[in-house]
Amino acid sequence: MAEDGTDQREQTLTRDDSIYKHSQNVHKYEKGRGLKCRSWLLHCLRFFTSGFGADWIFLMLLGFVMALISFLMDIFVFLFIDAHRWIYHVSGTNVFLQYLAWVIYSAILMCFAAGFTNVVAIQAAGSGIPEMKTVLRGVVLKEYLTFKTLVAKVISLICVLGSELPVGKEGPFVHIGSICAALLCKFMSLFSSIYKNELRNLEMITTGCAVGIGCCFGAPIGGVLFSIEVTSTFFVVRNYWRGLVSSTFGAFIFRLLPVWNKEEETIVALYPTKYRQDFPFDLQEIPAFALLGIACGFGGAFFVYLNGQITRTVKKLKTSNNFLMKNCFLYSCLVSLLISTLTFPPGFGQFMAGQLTQRDSLISFFDNRTWAKEGIVQDFADDDHLAAWKNPHANVFIVLAIFVAMKFWMSALSITLPIPCGSFVPVFVIGAAFGRLVGEGLAMWFPEGINSEDGIYPIVPGAYAVVGAAALTAGITHTFSTAVIMMELTGQLSYSLPILIAVILSNMIAQSLQPSIYDSIIRIKKLPYLPELGFGHQDKYNVHVEDFMVGDVRYVSLNSTYRKIHEILRTGNHKTLPVVKSTESMILLGSIERAQLHALLKQQLQHLQEHPQPERKRVSVAGTTSIKEGVHKVTHEVRFQISTEDSSPTPAHPVSSGPLKPALKRSSVAKTSTDIPADDDSSIGLTNMFFARPQTDTVEDDSDAEENRILCKIEEWEEQQLDEQVNFNNCKIDPAPFQLVEHTSLHKTHTVFSLLGLERAYVTSIGRLIGVVSLKELRKAIEGSTMKGPKGVQLRPSLARLRDTANGSRGEDTELHKLLDHQTS
Amino acid sequence: MAEDGTDQREQTLTRDDSIYKHSQNVHKYEKGRGLKCRSWLLHCLRFFTSGFGADWIFLMLLGFVMALISFLMDIFVFLFIDAHRWIYHVSGTNVFLQYLAWVIYSAILMCFAAGFTNVVAIQAAGSGIPEMKTVLRGVVLKEYLTFKTLVAKVISLICVLGSELPVGKEGPFVHIGSICAALLCKFMSLFSSIYKNELRNLEMITTGCAVGIGCCFGAPIGGVLFSIEVTSTFFVVRNYWRGLVSSTFGAFIFRLLPVWNKEEETIVALYPTKYRQDFPFDLQEIPAFALLGIACGFGGAFFVYLNGQITRTVKKLKTSNNFLMKNCFLYSCLVSLLISTLTFPPGFGQFMAGQLTQRDSLISFFDNRTWAKEGIVQDFADDDHLAAWKNPHANVFIVLAIFVAMKFWMSALSITLPIPCGSFVPVFVIGAAFGRLVGEGLAMWFPEGINSEDGIYPIVPGAYAVVGAAALTAGITHTFSTAVIMMELTGQLSYSLPILIAVILSNMIAQSLQPSIYDSIIRIKKLPYLPELGFGHQDKYNVHVEDFMVGDVRYVSLNSTYRKIHEILRTGNHKTLPVVKSTESMILLGSIERAQLHALLKQQLQHLQEHPQPERKRVSVAGTTSIKEGVHKVTHEVRFQISTEDSSPTPAHPVSSGPLKPALKRSSVAKTSTDIPADDDSSIGLTNMFFARPQTDTVEDDSDAEENRILCKIEEWEEQQLDEQVNFNNCKIDPAPFQLVEHTSLHKTHTVFSLLGLERAYVTSIGRLIGVVSLKELRKAIEGSTMKGPKGVQLRPSLARLRDTANGSRGEDTELHKLLDHQTS
Repeated sequence: MAEDGTDQREQTLTRDDSIYKHSQNVHKYEKGRGLKCRSWLLHCLRFFTSGFGADWIFLMLLGFVMALISFLMDIFVFLFIDAHRWIYHVSGTNVFLQYLAWVIYSAILMCFAAGFTNVVAIQAAGSGIPEMKTVLRGVVLKEYLTFKTLVAKVISLICVLGSELPVGKEGPFVHIGSICAALLCKFMSLFSSIYKNELRNLEMITTGCAVGIGCCFGAPIGGVLFSIEVTSTFFVVRNYWRGLVSSTFGAFIFRLLPVWNKEEETIVALYPTKYRQDFPFDLQEIPAFALLGIACGFGGAFFVYLNGQITRTVKKLKTSNNFLMKNCFLYSCLVSLLISTLTFPPGFGQFMAGQLTQRDSLISFFDNRTWAKEGIVQDFADDDHLAAWKNPHANVFIVLAIFVAMKFWMSALSITLPIPCGSFVPVFVIGAAFGRLVGEGLAMWFPEGINSEDGIYPIVPGAYAVVGAAALTAGITHTFSTAVIMMELTGQLSYSLPILIAVILSNMIAQSLQPSIYDSIIRIKKLPYLPELGFGHQDKYNVHVEDFMVGDVRYVSLNSTYRKIHEILRTGNHKTLPVVKSTESMILLGSIERAQLHALLKQQLQHLQEHPQPERKRVSVAGTTSIKEGVHKVTHEVRFQISTEDSSPTPAHPVSSGPLKPALKRSSVAKTSTDIPADDDSSIGLTNMFFARPQTDTVEDDSDAEENRILCKIEEWEEQQLDEQVNFNNCKIDPAPFQLVEHTSLHKTHTVFSLLGLERAYVTSIGRLIGVVSLKELRKAIEGSTMKGPKGVQLRPSLARLRDTANGSRGEDTELHKLLDHQTS
Repeated sequence: MAEDGTDQREQTLTRDDSIYKHSQNVHKYEKGRGLKCRSWLLHCLRFFTSGFGADWIFLMLLGFVMALISFLMDIFVFLFIDAHRWIYHVSGTNVFLQYLAWVIYSAILMCFAAGFTNVVAIQAAGSGIPEMKTVLRGVVLKEYLTFKTLVAKVISLICVLGSELPVGKEGPFVHIGSICAALLCKFMSLFSSIYKNELRNLEMITTGCAVGIGCCFGAPIGGVLFSIEVTSTFFVVRNYWRGLVSSTFGAFIFRLLPVWNKEEETIVALYPTKYRQDFPFDLQEIPAFALLGIACGFGGAFFVYLNGQITRTVKKLKTSNNFLMKNCFLYSCLVSLLISTLTFPPGFGQFMAGQLTQRDSLISFFDNRTWAKEGIVQDFADDDHLAAWKNPHANVFIVLAIFVAMKFWMSALSITLPIPCGSFVPVFVIGAAFGRLVGEGLAMWFPEGINSEDGIYPIVPGAYAVVGAAALTAGITHTFSTAVIMMELTGQLSYSLPILIAVILSNMIAQSLQPSIYDSIIRIKKLPYLPELGFGHQDKYNVHVEDFMVGDVRYVSLNSTYRKIHEILRTGNHKTLPVVKSTESMILLGSIERAQLHALLKQQLQHLQEHPQPERKRVSVAGTTSIKEGVHKVTHEVRFQISTEDSSPTPAHPVSSGPLKPALKRSSVAKTSTDIPADDDSSIGLTNMFFARPQTDTVEDDSDAEENRILCKIEEWEEQQLDEQVNFNNCKIDPAPFQLVEHTSLHKTHTVFSLLGLERAYVTSIGRLIGVVSLKELRKAIEGSTMKGPKGVQLRPSLARLRDTANGSRGEDTELHKLLDHQTS
């Protein structure tokens, strides 16, 4: 014990020193700006980091920032909604004026939100969870985690929520949390080198997701679990701790701020309920809860289907060159007009409690009383939230049913708009309304409660609202943590078992019918993703890599010529290519980046240009003179620019001298090259690719013949160069690309891809490259094995089964003599 | 939608078919036994699996079985405790008789438990969580998941809990859950081939852990999280779903059974609390909760330290050949006598509420009332649980303090006994008592509540008990999910924030002082494990594999001779060896199992024996005749048996023709070979290893000279054979052993090892083998970077930092020309 103590102290001291040294380095480096301020900051930071470790500071800061954003956003949204109500009441004399005030206010806010998102950062549109799922998969989406996007997302979201569109803030908050985490990482990297590690920052972004949800609902545990379920297939327990610490602090601050602001007396749940605790529910109510869960499962699947259909229809309209759909303002504005017209309280809105905000509706659904009871609804005071449910023309059942039906399609429509919007809260509200409906029905059916033996315990319709909300959300998001979020939101655990049962049943139904709303959006947006392996799909253990790999691999061999490389670069667009020993042996040596090959090819031609040989000299002169002559036209100037960019001198270091990053990170670079159509590309001569050379048809004056002669020479020389063997000496080759053996099962492949965040793996048999599997193939294989639909790759389960019994025991083991044969040959 | 539906149906149909076919196969195979019964069972199962998928059946079954075990165990334990009380009261006239009844009853039960465990399955001793952690790491512990162990664990646990020793059932239940899952997998594999997949079964065992905890506390969510935190470093979200489904069902049944048994009216929490919900706590109480958490953190670390010290002392005593310690009965019996003497109610027990069971103490700690208030304690009725806290000689503070102090060391001592025992519940009780003590103190200090503005809200000491229990348990187990378990146990969420804050602080303190109780036991028992990377240890990103790898690797090269292999087998005891191309190039080709090499060597000698050559003939005759002559003694018969086992004819397939399993799985095989001391092994001639050949000193008759001559010849021939190059043609070589590059960071290495459950990885530089990293080195490196103590490997952080700045940007990328140099050389 005593020894440990000393060690601890020593460690603290050495860490102090290193931080101090580092701080001094930073000091020197950034001498220019705010010397004194930074020195003081560093001093403070040194004190904190020495005591706790920088992680704690980071997590606390993240929690605090997110809580503040969430709290301020709530205040602003409240102000906007209040202003809406005020304008509506001020214009109270004339219904038409009232209608205009009600509708135009929303439309203006919506237009502003859509415009702001569109202008500042289009990445801020949508929920953000599908994209975060992709980002955490290791794919870098451009501009997705920048400050600009944060600003666009926060401001637009306030306007959207203020316009009372039925959308939520939980999805955007996952995105906001991730941006905050990424920005904080950048900020912290000024002080600690540890924040320069990309792997670690990705872990921190995961934490950001959890904090986002935690601060949004004041539900730290549910938030952490939800973010895990939604964003990852595999996760690190370490991250779960980080997430919990950060989101607990965030939730604490988020719930503390209203207390400081004198809005609340102490910290309680966001939607506190006070159902009876001694006898929360009768056992005979369990089937009712289960049925509610099943119904919500079907509802959830239908919601996802509806949302997908709307998105696809809108997309089709957009492509069919419709003016209406081309303009993002118009579409958002029209949807807003439609929805606010329907919710206009004196109009149709009176049949669907149109004047209630989402928060007010939730509070009313979780109400303790039984509305179906005689006289209760009539007693609702006019200033109460509940007054909205009092309708002279229709009873509470009809109002609730209309509410559910209308909100259902409104929400499905709203979340397709190009604005920041989440689907969690609106679905929550619909589920609660549906649950309330069921609960009220049961309460009317059994006015004395189901249990007639030991005393009267009437049915609590509010509890059904709670269960319904959790179950419907679970059905749409395919998560179980909605149960935990629900419990934390309502602050009651008495109904934990009914909630869990309903959530599980809802998940069972929904998962077997449709993908989750996030996966559905990922599919529609065509983001690179990997579907989950669901329950009970047993085939996946009997399908092997060789069943779905691509056998026709483009590769580079050690003895390939430059011509081969040129051809490979021209035809394919893979970001990395495998390097094999020779075409005969196919022994996999490693993988090489496309950019490296490009650089190699360029170097080969440049190298000779720099060390002039008899025939080279003329060519080089011709190359430069032709540029000076300015014989190319504007159309070629564009191509010329691309060319010079490519041929910028990089003699010692080839194009990418940095470490090899996951290949997808270079997507932006790759895109610029693939943007040029392939046939166009192939028509250009090789030198044209690297040296600015005008095309023959652009030459106008009588230096035409001379030009042609030179060009012929160039081509001749080119041909000669291309037949040389490639010299890989200065190349960076990744010596350990991920390899699978042909007998690896689909299940294991999925595991490895998810765990290590792979994008592509080579399939080898005894060291020989026999195929390649990328995310795409894996995705198809999984879809094929789970759906067997026309989309999936046709698998061979019968064959697989045969093989399984025949040489299943051989497994992934292979014999060396085959390898040796290839080695010796 | 409609298409999907059809697909689903088609899939169901094909699955039906395959299940049917499989069932028919099983049918033929097991024709003998219970034909009719099985056919009927298969029919039923087919119906279920076609509808839901086998997973659901499995999860429900597992939950049901565990709930039943938990419920029945509770009933039996209750009966035992009741009987104890009855005997105690019957002998009420005489204090000495009472003492005997109190003490001997416990001692007998304890002795039976210890004996039963020892005789039936010693693997049942202890908590089981450390061992499960190891099993889920991929290590197979022998006999650990058998039915015998299950029986031993369940029956012994009932006796131990019945004897009122301060131990819990949660640890054993994790073990029981895993055994049940493993056995169910075996059972289900009769019906579905999918349950023969080992990877999948390991996932199911993880589920079993979660169900164990869930059914033990009726806390499904907390149980799942606890099992995740305790058993894994990384986990699959899929498993979390499975765990939640299964443990929800388990918890439901577990809480349903008492209702059916008419013990309870409906399903409520296990220890329901009814603190006020409208104003659960004042904000000014938060610091008090935080301090309680910090104190519990220190307490938790001290508990782990104390437990470790006791275990080590006991071990020392055992090795010092003390009769007392050699006998497992005696040790258990003595501890039981000591503890029950101290808790004897009329004796010292009256100062520590000795007559209360753990359940009763918990109920009393969570009591709604404030005991410090004037007159409250005096009102406790004599038949109430609370009566135990009423003492004429001491006030409630003294009794609580003595309770905490005594139970602390008693629990730390009890869990070292060789019986099934968990540390969770006793620590829970201690934490609750400590929390109650703090709460009562605060209530006395602020009799009117802290908040004096808006009304009187007195302090709730029961809430402090809840927070204390969660925080102390968190400090000992290093988990955050104790917070969730606590909430589910008490059925109240109002105190979620104080609980979370205390749990986080307790974790911070405890994690920086001591390992968790489970890691501590793992270290003491020397199980193969990998420590977690804690918070704030930044060095781990700057330490690379080359800093801690073992550079001196034993390897086999393609051109090595049999002599080399003989030497390697003789000196090392690694289960797999790397195969390189040649000693000069060191290009890694794959890895080979030790058993394979053994087989190779044997074959080389046998091969010639079977195809006689001039000089071989005599040797072979000599070899066989010497056996026939029976000149070996009993001592050699043992060795002979080993030899014949080794030399059993395997002409086509070498020793292990099955798939290569994780090397550790063969530990049992490897052990038998390493059990023979190395020097002994080296003294035996080579032929001796394979052919039964009597050692020269055992030859007694006058065929001595002839024998010697033959032996010389054999040796000569041997020497000749050994110089031949190895023929790897019939060898199975794993072509893709896991490789790391020398610049891989410690952090990434840890991730990869944990993710893929590796035991050993080779370090390569441009394809050349330069070192090896096993769990051991990794463990040392992590300990070194987190503790820098004398135990850890001395790392070079200064060097690492330098390297980081110098070529940090190069990363794990290497240049091909080096590779080419080695290829050409």
